[in-house]
Amino acid sequence: MNNPEAILVSNAHTIFYSAGFETLSAHEREAYVLLISKRKIIITDARYSGATHNSESELYILKLGERVGEVIKKICAENKVETLGCEVNDLKWSELLMLQKLGLQITPLSNIFSEQRSIKTEEELFAIKQACHICDLVLKDVTPYIHPEQTEKEISWYIEKSIREGYKAELAFDPIVAVDEHAATPHYNTQKGDGVIKDGSLLLIDFGVKIHNYCSDITRMVGVGNVSDEIKNTYSKLLTIQRKTIDYINTTSSLKEIDTFCREELQKYKLPLYSHSTGHGVGLEVHEAPRLSASSEDRKAAGQIFTIEPGVYIPGKWGMRIEDTIAILDQEEIEVLTRFPKELILV
Amino acid sequence: MNNPEAILVSNAHTIFYSAGFETLSAHEREAYVLLISKRKIIITDARYSGATHNSESELYILKLGERVGEVIKKICAENKVETLGCEVNDLKWSELLMLQKLGLQITPLSNIFSEQRSIKTEEELFAIKQACHICDLVLKDVTPYIHPEQTEKEISWYIEKSIREGYKAELAFDPIVAVDEHAATPHYNTQKGDGVIKDGSLLLIDFGVKIHNYCSDITRMVGVGNVSDEIKNTYSKLLTIQRKTIDYINTTSSLKEIDTFCREELQKYKLPLYSHSTGHGVGLEVHEAPRLSASSEDRKAAGQIFTIEPGVYIPGKWGMRIEDTIAILDQEEIEVLTRFPKELILV
Repeated sequence: MNNPEAILVSNAHTIFYSAGFETLSAHEREAYVLLISKRKIIITDARYSGATHNSESELYILKLGERVGEVIKKICAENKVETLGCEVNDLKWSELLMLQKLGLQITPLSNIFSEQRSIKTEEELFAIKQACHICDLVLKDVTPYIHPEQTEKEISWYIEKSIREGYKAELAFDPIVAVDEHAATPHYNTQKGDGVIKDGSLLLIDFGVKIHNYCSDITRMVGVGNVSDEIKNTYSKLLTIQRKTIDYINTTSSLKEIDTFCREELQKYKLPLYSHSTGHGVGLEVHEAPRLSASSEDRKAAGQIFTIEPGVYIPGKWGMRIEDTIAILDQEEIEVLTRFPKELILV
Repeated sequence: MNNPEAILVSNAHTIFYSAGFETLSAHEREAYVLLISKRKIIITDARYSGATHNSESELYILKLGERVGEVIKKICAENKVETLGCEVNDLKWSELLMLQKLGLQITPLSNIFSEQRSIKTEEELFAIKQACHICDLVLKDVTPYIHPEQTEKEISWYIEKSIREGYKAELAFDPIVAVDEHAATPHYNTQKGDGVIKDGSLLLIDFGVKIHNYCSDITRMVGVGNVSDEIKNTYSKLLTIQRKTIDYINTTSSLKEIDTFCREELQKYKLPLYSHSTGHGVGLEVHEAPRLSASSEDRKAAGQIFTIEPGVYIPGKWGMRIEDTIAILDQEEIEVLTRFPKELILV
């Protein structure tokens, strides 16, 4: 298929990436960017009349009652554009139907921007390093504070206050603080939970920081009081596997192989396989390209930043995960950006 | 078009509404619900293996490497289902392409669940009333605290702490705290802004509370010190218009007409027209059906809860908005659920 003559960007993070324009909600459709020859036209409504954007882009404010489709049609006609590429992973079915009525040929674009976004510039790397550094500092703040009878929610709120009040940064996502059997659900919802720490508890802490629009992601484990030998032994194996997986990155350029390697290591130790991927890219979004999973076709490349996060989950008992955010540097060297010690934190 | 034999729910809020199952992120696709004869099948992955859901629904956990499409295809085949309805306003183009490959006829469903969701049960009304009451209490907490030299961000953080620490509730959305010319951008981003209150400032405070999963929404205005007569006079007109618009609800069953009425009132007072809608439904999401706008075809109905929020925006100078959350009761009576006084708050 030929390349389309123009591209309509709908994903709010990609809009920010390409035009420096940020909407209040990343999930309600509040703007599009039309890329047409060398122009970047932000189409939004008067709620954003005074909003900032980068100097290469132009702001088109919809008049009251004017529909975004009419504007796209008009600009395309003026520029003799007949084919419009859209983000297949972001555009909604209703939007597709609306665009198809405009008389343009709409073609699906998959992952073009996500690949660009996955290769970080020096500035982006710098922001993510800062976000990782704040993770380390927050863990240093929060771990001495953990004790029996605390709730998961209290610890989560302590982490959030440390990030926001202490370091003037934002959350990359709602922290997951999960005690004992709760941690066996990898996407446990702390805000809806009722977990309380007790003597012997194993606590999973998974959080991320966002600063200057860029995210970090880290998971560490805390043992409270008399932690069982079963937990300590399994943790020690998982830590070995996580470290070996990070070392393995150097030996391959297939991200799928890193996932395979990590699972094979777990099997060697007779540990159960986790249900999530071994890692994911981190940037403007906390989950973005590349993917490190069995179905991934992504290749390793300098400039990528992704997590390595194997886990062991025993339903009804406990769960553990060790996660670092890692950068692939220019010579394809690896730099682990989250530096808080990875040993089981005993309090 | 005939009704489809099964329905695939993709919207995270509708999934919660129909199956009582909540994913950690409402925006990354982490689950679907397949409605098929009387069954409600939640299809998700092992990250949610221990998660709760309502008693009428069943949890299908994808095996490692199993694709959601295969499972949908298999269940549909077992039940001799050939047509599958999907949420046209939520399903992504890539998901549509995936589903179309399964050999099922995929039909677009528009707003079916949003209409159901727009009519609140007694329990839902009760939760939203609580969320509105917390708005009133937070305004009582925060307004005495406002003074010159404070930043917008400080006030926003104070509101958030009051909601979360003081009332153990959640934010419905990031509070908009916008001073002077910043408030002329109706969707001003406080977190990215640098506004500072000074003597004579006009401050817009727009926030919402979420409790037991249901939202509220309120906007009030604060004048700091020597506020200009121009501001006071315009505010007084806007307040009259907002009250008249609420009274007007009783006289019509067309929500579009409420929007028209409000704009005609503004024109009578020679005030500029705002760019946003006059109101929106509030429920599991802070913006949901019905809509009160020039293009709305929604009808008023008992059980709806929506906002009335006209504003006046003078670019480069200031902006003001007055917003209440309002319920349509059984006899189509109106109850204003946000009760904090609407006069300009002078501090």
